[in-house]
Amino acid sequence: MKFRRSERLVDMTNFLLEHPGQLVSLTFFSERYSSAKSSISEDLSIIKETFETRGIGSLHTVPGAAGGVRYVVGIPREEAFSFIDEMCGIIASPERLLPGGYLYMTDILGQPQIVNKVGRIIAAAFSEKKVDVIMTMATKGIPLAYAVANYLNVPVVIVRRDNKVTEGSTVSINYVSGSSKRIQTMVLSKRSLAEGSNVLIVDDFMKAGGTINGMVSLLEEFNASVAGISVLVESERSEERLVDNYLSLITLSGVDEKDKKINVSRGNYFFKTSLK
Amino acid sequence: MKFRRSERLVDMTNFLLEHPGQLVSLTFFSERYSSAKSSISEDLSIIKETFETRGIGSLHTVPGAAGGVRYVVGIPREEAFSFIDEMCGIIASPERLLPGGYLYMTDILGQPQIVNKVGRIIAAAFSEKKVDVIMTMATKGIPLAYAVANYLNVPVVIVRRDNKVTEGSTVSINYVSGSSKRIQTMVLSKRSLAEGSNVLIVDDFMKAGGTINGMVSLLEEFNASVAGISVLVESERSEERLVDNYLSLITLSGVDEKDKKINVSRGNYFFKTSLK
Repeated sequence: MKFRRSERLVDMTNFLLEHPGQLVSLTFFSERYSSAKSSISEDLSIIKETFETRGIGSLHTVPGAAGGVRYVVGIPREEAFSFIDEMCGIIASPERLLPGGYLYMTDILGQPQIVNKVGRIIAAAFSEKKVDVIMTMATKGIPLAYAVANYLNVPVVIVRRDNKVTEGSTVSINYVSGSSKRIQTMVLSKRSLAEGSNVLIVDDFMKAGGTINGMVSLLEEFNASVAGISVLVESERSEERLVDNYLSLITLSGVDEKDKKINVSRGNYFFKTSLK
Repeated sequence: MKFRRSERLVDMTNFLLEHPGQLVSLTFFSERYSSAKSSISEDLSIIKETFETRGIGSLHTVPGAAGGVRYVVGIPREEAFSFIDEMCGIIASPERLLPGGYLYMTDILGQPQIVNKVGRIIAAAFSEKKVDVIMTMATKGIPLAYAVANYLNVPVVIVRRDNKVTEGSTVSINYVSGSSKRIQTMVLSKRSLAEGSNVLIVDDFMKAGGTINGMVSLLEEFNASVAGISVLVESERSEERLVDNYLSLITLSGVDEKDKKINVSRGNYFFKTSLK
């Protein structure tokens, strides 16, 4: 059965969006639609142009017999900026203030549309880097980690605070929490991370950076390297930060419990233009 | 700027896929592309036909001034069946056997492509039911819950075993774990679930069903109701199960630690045809 161009465009768009970062050969599409490779090439030029005009991402073409196309996720800078500014407004709402100066963000991280957008922004920022795996710490970072992993088409490994029988044998390290200065443990299943992996660390919140620093130490145990570090919210503190090269979307610069005021501003994403 | 049909088809496909379950008006598309509503209607017929032929899902049309189209996720039955059969093969691999008869599944649940496919199958099964929220238990159920939530475009609430300051005030219940018969606690942030919500419970694994039963009791505390229960793997046991109306993709019928044999078969998804 032959497909018309219009049907091919709809199905190819769906297929490419469902397989980000993956090289798809012209032959695959040509067989899928019983269409000539020349027609497929024309389809792909239309998709490429639309993806780029509408800020959906880009299509990278790899020439040659083993070649094909690869969809690389993107987001227009202005869309990312206005989304982050909107998020700042949402986070600054006084009802979010919890005893002890903590912020309630559970509802925000429970919205797939928000989580996906954050994931898209982070994935787009690291789309040109070599990332094999996303790492996060249970529990709150998990949704963001999967959203990023989805767009980069790589697996997720989850570091835990406790040892569970279903993880098999594990590697554990002790680290000092940056803000409470307490000694804590983190555990990662031995089978879950291959040696030499390039790991992008993703988390929802960073205070002094003790947890993220712990994940970096854990990576050393696996002979893996840090491809990047990204957080949704960083809390600005006068003390020295344990982690220095990271991407943050939002900065929490202060919480005034008495006046119920939360000071939120743009993260370093706005200044790290070279990452895009 | 006017858009050609081919460009509209690519961008509309992306837009609909990114907004499942959401009613989008013809006016919205007509303004987005500076095109007549009659052209948009034709575009949508092409997309609808392709989505249905290729098993991507369906487009529901709501007529009238407040009307529009809604993308409802789907999956061809044969694709779901062959995917689940493939998963059964992966899970039955002897290296997955851990001491105590537990199974290592962390790597499987770390693959976004697998998690999304499971999420798609579960979402499609419940796409005709009224679901306001997805509920799961930390930690392992989280990725699946978000995958389902993504396709149904609803938020996720995460039940925890411990009370965290960042959750604000919480409601907690005690329940008896079905397999270990121990009394355990589960906690849910008070603000996270609105009264009267229709909740779809999603988890990775169900043994006797104590945890899921606990979540059902927790829903009562919030005057919320169960829209459905779905698990990736159910463990078949001779004892009476605490939960009876659920959807499972895979059944683990027995683990022989001595002979390193794992018996895995199709879940009740294959027989619950009415759900589709």
